[in-house]
Amino acid sequence: MTVYAAPLADIRFALFDVLGADALYQRLPGFEAAGRDIVDAVLDEAARFAEQVLAPINQSGDQEGCTLDKASASVTTPKGFKEAFRQYVEGGWTGLTTPAVYGGQELPEVVGAIVKEMIDSANVSWGNFPMLSHGAVEALKAHGEDWQRDAFLKPITEGRWTGTMCLTEPHCGTDLGLLKTRAEPQPDGSYRITGTKIFITAGEHDLADNIVHLVLARLPDAPPGVKGISLFIVPKFRVGRDGAQGERNALAVGSIEHKMGIKASVTCVMNFDGADGWLIGAPNKGLNAMFTMMNTARLAVGVQGLGLIERGYQNALRYARERVQMRAATGPRYPDKPADPLIVHPDIRRMLLTQKAFAEGGRLLALYAYTRHDISTHGTDEDERRRNEELVSFLTPIVKGLLTELAQEATYDAIQVFGGHGYIAETGVEQYARDARITTIYEGTTQIQANDLLGRKILQLRGAGLKHFLEEIGGFCQQHAGDAALAEFIAPLAIAAKEWSELTLEIGQKAQGNPDEVGAAAVDYLFYSGYVALAYFWARSVAAANASAQPADFKTAKLHTARFYFARLLPRTSAHRAAIRSGADTLMALPDALFG
Amino acid sequence: MTVYAAPLADIRFALFDVLGADALYQRLPGFEAAGRDIVDAVLDEAARFAEQVLAPINQSGDQEGCTLDKASASVTTPKGFKEAFRQYVEGGWTGLTTPAVYGGQELPEVVGAIVKEMIDSANVSWGNFPMLSHGAVEALKAHGEDWQRDAFLKPITEGRWTGTMCLTEPHCGTDLGLLKTRAEPQPDGSYRITGTKIFITAGEHDLADNIVHLVLARLPDAPPGVKGISLFIVPKFRVGRDGAQGERNALAVGSIEHKMGIKASVTCVMNFDGADGWLIGAPNKGLNAMFTMMNTARLAVGVQGLGLIERGYQNALRYARERVQMRAATGPRYPDKPADPLIVHPDIRRMLLTQKAFAEGGRLLALYAYTRHDISTHGTDEDERRRNEELVSFLTPIVKGLLTELAQEATYDAIQVFGGHGYIAETGVEQYARDARITTIYEGTTQIQANDLLGRKILQLRGAGLKHFLEEIGGFCQQHAGDAALAEFIAPLAIAAKEWSELTLEIGQKAQGNPDEVGAAAVDYLFYSGYVALAYFWARSVAAANASAQPADFKTAKLHTARFYFARLLPRTSAHRAAIRSGADTLMALPDALFG
Repeated sequence: MTVYAAPLADIRFALFDVLGADALYQRLPGFEAAGRDIVDAVLDEAARFAEQVLAPINQSGDQEGCTLDKASASVTTPKGFKEAFRQYVEGGWTGLTTPAVYGGQELPEVVGAIVKEMIDSANVSWGNFPMLSHGAVEALKAHGEDWQRDAFLKPITEGRWTGTMCLTEPHCGTDLGLLKTRAEPQPDGSYRITGTKIFITAGEHDLADNIVHLVLARLPDAPPGVKGISLFIVPKFRVGRDGAQGERNALAVGSIEHKMGIKASVTCVMNFDGADGWLIGAPNKGLNAMFTMMNTARLAVGVQGLGLIERGYQNALRYARERVQMRAATGPRYPDKPADPLIVHPDIRRMLLTQKAFAEGGRLLALYAYTRHDISTHGTDEDERRRNEELVSFLTPIVKGLLTELAQEATYDAIQVFGGHGYIAETGVEQYARDARITTIYEGTTQIQANDLLGRKILQLRGAGLKHFLEEIGGFCQQHAGDAALAEFIAPLAIAAKEWSELTLEIGQKAQGNPDEVGAAAVDYLFYSGYVALAYFWARSVAAANASAQPADFKTAKLHTARFYFARLLPRTSAHRAAIRSGADTLMALPDALFG
Repeated sequence: MTVYAAPLADIRFALFDVLGADALYQRLPGFEAAGRDIVDAVLDEAARFAEQVLAPINQSGDQEGCTLDKASASVTTPKGFKEAFRQYVEGGWTGLTTPAVYGGQELPEVVGAIVKEMIDSANVSWGNFPMLSHGAVEALKAHGEDWQRDAFLKPITEGRWTGTMCLTEPHCGTDLGLLKTRAEPQPDGSYRITGTKIFITAGEHDLADNIVHLVLARLPDAPPGVKGISLFIVPKFRVGRDGAQGERNALAVGSIEHKMGIKASVTCVMNFDGADGWLIGAPNKGLNAMFTMMNTARLAVGVQGLGLIERGYQNALRYARERVQMRAATGPRYPDKPADPLIVHPDIRRMLLTQKAFAEGGRLLALYAYTRHDISTHGTDEDERRRNEELVSFLTPIVKGLLTELAQEATYDAIQVFGGHGYIAETGVEQYARDARITTIYEGTTQIQANDLLGRKILQLRGAGLKHFLEEIGGFCQQHAGDAALAEFIAPLAIAAKEWSELTLEIGQKAQGNPDEVGAAAVDYLFYSGYVALAYFWARSVAAANASAQPADFKTAKLHTARFYFARLLPRTSAHRAAIRSGADTLMALPDALFG
């Protein structure tokens, strides 16, 4: 009963009118084939797949969930999932962004991100099965040996195999330094992996012929902590150096979790009992290799947040137009109906506009980050690549942290617009909130993102990414200094950017005296940064819309949504700024024993 | 696996040290029996019941849910629910606050609210069964004829029967003016009720011998809209004027809803097919009578929010102390452990302190409102009763709106502290978030509370309640003007109170020019008001703790939590103020057709 129509008009506006993807990708070596025609065709086809194949099995997947057969240690995905995956493979989607040399289509990552947004709007649980493969591809590309790439990348690209990331153990999630899984070297250069991993998404399922686990483990002589972690590739069915698939490996799913949401995405306890595996990258440098996967995965989880914001918005909007209840405060708007539709009421509009501003602004933020990623890997000169790498590294925790947090609020709003009807399973919106709830947790909690942003990207790396981003905002403000149509946005944006810069310096100075100041400020700083970034993208949206050939209605909608954003949402920065400035003392003063 | 220990120390502090309940109830006629000894004994016993009887069946109740047997139109509650209700009845809890004349114990409503908080912390789904009876009692007390009170109140008080409120129909929830259920007068003075009601909590179950439905319906000659609604009492088994229980009435549960949470609380579609009922109160004045129930129920739902905040906090705190992960930024705090417990990390502390500040501050807000309610019904002079009635009428939407909204954030925080372990059903915390999600919806959404607060209690009624409350805050500030230990709280509280008053005037002026300004400001105004009110209660907590015989550790905890509240949470008012001041234009400008 829920609706989903891929927001292609807004996606194209973001990609082409705002981000200038057409010209950008024409000049990036390796992406010349990604012309507008090709991209348009890919987006149309992805929209069809998401709307017609994935959306219809979202609610049923939630209700049915995955089932584990303990005896055979096999997992059955919900009805329709396997067939959808078959169509996905046949459509060539598994290799969308993989280099041609491994059989992929080598399209830009930004195109992959857009396809992913549609998949996640339609069926975020289903989307987790291909998502994890993407991380494995990235890690193998960057750190695998030639034979490993040959043996594993091709079948993953072809969709015959899928991937996982096996990090978490019962006693350690965030703190990977504590992990205990062991890897013993064998005479033939392989390793025997023994240990228990938990929370393994897509650890076992019936969609593919083999599952390639990327597993963090310790070598016998490894130093303690995070400096003694290595990365291994451990397939469900053994794979030799020749790439041939062999017998069942000594690993199996032990149980699957019952979760609040993403119930159709299987979450496994994986037991490795001396399973054969291969080292990827250098010994004890596993965390490094893992971060290659993780960064991609973090952006991708941000896109999940975006997808759920969009899906919730579409449903809330439809309901707000259909459901009649009470009269407008200014008098009946639809006198022929028994009451006015919900959309006439100011606070319903506030909730709808909040969702809309998050969806469209968040989309631009995410796609901007992905275009920077593509430039960082394919840019023509090293300066450009480095600059964009610094930008994407700075933006990754914002995209992940902000969009997943905003997804909490937006899916809350979607339910609230539906009222009591939003709380019952039938209408489908409560599922979005349950599904969204994991996104602020997996691939690093909001706390981890915030510490990565403030502790590492700003303070340790001296804020290179922020500097570039602020320069860009400054340039944009200057460029539009005389533009009367933009004046209402440029002035507050310039102030916000200046304050962002000053606030960052303030925290930096405080942190020198007390390391707890970083953790005390981090989450509020992430929100603060995110809201200023969205203000920039909303101002840019208005500028780009005005300069575009978009219909007048489209321009009007962008203008009013931007005004709403600046009037209603950007002021939240004031509360975050005050919280940041209050410092660590009020957090740290209460002795642990006196909390309750 | 989840914990719950009734927070008796904080409850007693709020009730006796802050609110002076001992002296207060000694001087209120009718409550003289509610001395400290009696109340203490009641609280101890309620804590035991909540902890030992209700808490153990909370998670199992969520997993099992209620089941409907369509053939017999009967509902079976989860395992243990019936036995718990039997114990509840035997303990005399069903009559805790009912007047002695109907067989009750006639304790103050504030005592009922405290018992309810414990019940809701332990098992909010179970709590819904007795909760609805309370509303029926209130409506019958205020509007019932003598024989109705005799026939219905006694069995409800004794716990042999339970009550419901039947308002919502498929096409109308908030907008009761649209309701279609009909009532046809019969020669014997009774009525035949026909129609379908939805979302009926406890509409059918196996806990009691009879279920007394209070049903809104229209008389044949009723004027359209809300002025044509009457209230009827329609029991599952017929009840004559002599109170004798007769045959099955022509009403039945049609189906039960599958919901996001409160799964053990049954939500029924109720079909009335010419069911026999009796009019309560005057014809066409049903909404009036209904509001008697509703106001009680609204405060009670606020208490549900409070109960869930407390429960989530206790579990998050325990986990934050037990789970070790990473080292403190300032160096290892527990070098003998493999890592430090989560509670050393600043943002974990921020989340814990937020929950603690909401729980303890929210408790005081709620209990304050209930004490005002008790004074309004039992006060010795009319001025006192009226003043307190105005206060409680003003506070009701704040208690309901704020505490249920804060429950969203607090239960989010509880899950977030647990990380991935919070998302799986086993640990139990995700249930609190799912259970909490209904509280901002039923008994009037946050939007309805906000419009009730700003549109009715402030603007229509000229803010009598706010005036009293601000006077009280002013008096408190003056009283402690020279108190150095309180200076850090008094100054910002006085500023906030002044701004609250000014902001209210501003909105009032704007609203004269444009009625949409009310709806545009309302939700932000509710949050704004709530945060200032909590600041007052936190300042009072510190003052009361300092003046009390509480242990030094207790005083320290109150002081630091208050400091945290003023530094980190009160500044949120600035964002709400900016949103309010931005006015209705940015909400109303975008044409309905251009939302997407």
